[in-house]
Amino acid sequence: MTRGKQLYEGKAKRVYATANPAEYIVEYKDDATAFNGVKKAQIGGKGAINNAITAHLFPQLEGSGIPTHFLQHLSETEQLVRAVSIIPVEVIVRNVAAGSFSKRLGVEEGTLLPCPVVEYCYKSDALGDPLINDDTAIALGWATEPQLRRLRELALKVRAFLTPYFETRGVRLIDFKLEFGTLADGTVVLADEISPDTCRFWDAETNEKMDKDRFRRDLGGVEDAYTEMLRRVTGPAQG
Amino acid sequence: MTRGKQLYEGKAKRVYATANPAEYIVEYKDDATAFNGVKKAQIGGKGAINNAITAHLFPQLEGSGIPTHFLQHLSETEQLVRAVSIIPVEVIVRNVAAGSFSKRLGVEEGTLLPCPVVEYCYKSDALGDPLINDDTAIALGWATEPQLRRLRELALKVRAFLTPYFETRGVRLIDFKLEFGTLADGTVVLADEISPDTCRFWDAETNEKMDKDRFRRDLGGVEDAYTEMLRRVTGPAQG
Repeated sequence: MTRGKQLYEGKAKRVYATANPAEYIVEYKDDATAFNGVKKAQIGGKGAINNAITAHLFPQLEGSGIPTHFLQHLSETEQLVRAVSIIPVEVIVRNVAAGSFSKRLGVEEGTLLPCPVVEYCYKSDALGDPLINDDTAIALGWATEPQLRRLRELALKVRAFLTPYFETRGVRLIDFKLEFGTLADGTVVLADEISPDTCRFWDAETNEKMDKDRFRRDLGGVEDAYTEMLRRVTGPAQG
Repeated sequence: MTRGKQLYEGKAKRVYATANPAEYIVEYKDDATAFNGVKKAQIGGKGAINNAITAHLFPQLEGSGIPTHFLQHLSETEQLVRAVSIIPVEVIVRNVAAGSFSKRLGVEEGTLLPCPVVEYCYKSDALGDPLINDDTAIALGWATEPQLRRLRELALKVRAFLTPYFETRGVRLIDFKLEFGTLADGTVVLADEISPDTCRFWDAETNEKMDKDRFRRDLGGVEDAYTEMLRRVTGPAQG
């Protein structure tokens, strides 16, 4: 499998064409950014870890009825995916108040939400991924009403799979961000990644952060946390 | 009708008890604030104008099937209303991109929206009235799901009445903010005001601003714009 032309470079990944127009290669980078690119660094091994975690989870999500772009783990930092057009609406699912949600709404970090909160943000680095709602996404042409219904349905399915998955591995899934794309025939599939870059993971016993917040908040032990998350995700369920 | 105890003082109004626990007196102030209270001034005659505009519009909204808190125009700056508990979810309805929406989403001010956009904000001066969605309002206990459905339904009814109402008076209704309250029996009714403080009005011919943006943006002629809006609102429809 050889890389063709680079099609896209994001903050944490590069996407390449392949000889097959229906397939792309995604390369995971060690680059870490926070606060919309203002804070930058390298996290050693991050690309390989996030590639491995995503490659471990996506087939299981596929198996529980969530179509994804994932095809194959190719190398330490590469995976083969189905070619999609990314829908520019990021989907955030929250089980527990944290981060920008806590700050914006004055809700103490760690507050359990009585029902899951699904939020949409417009995927735009220039605008800082602003919060939007269904009406706005539809009015500005970023997604159609049926697509938004599908995003919500799939996001809640992902939550229903992941929350107990992590729980049985000693991890509280606080919140996570998903991206979706459309195949050539319009089918909506889960794209992007699921990793400590895109989720908040807290240790179930200590509430210690095991995700990108260690980098954002200068808590130290970033590489160790990512490595431990890989171990737990790929390890057996407990209890 | 005599005022009892002051129950509430907001940026533009005071609310008083009356001898009847089911009725309040609202007093409209000349105070103007912008940018969440950072910019402050007095606009001469504003209280009387906003009181008169609201007192003119609310009975017509009531007549077109929208329950409101309005009972009676009492004096230049006072009106009698039904006692409500304000639902802490402000409802913004947008016909045309402007203000914070344009800035946040990079959409040029004046862009016609192909469908109306209804947004919810959490009514909190301390937090700067942050944008929220249905899930958040429900999870944090600010409104119930049936209440949110009703807010949206009523807000779109208000839009359906007001947009042509202003159009026949030479005014483009760009966007507006509504507040709702619940009566003792739980009925949701339109509360607060509809005025140049809470709507964006542009002259249909010149697109000149005829609302609080003249104050926010130091455009001058604030009093004249409010006076002209009162004249148009209370005057006959044209064409």
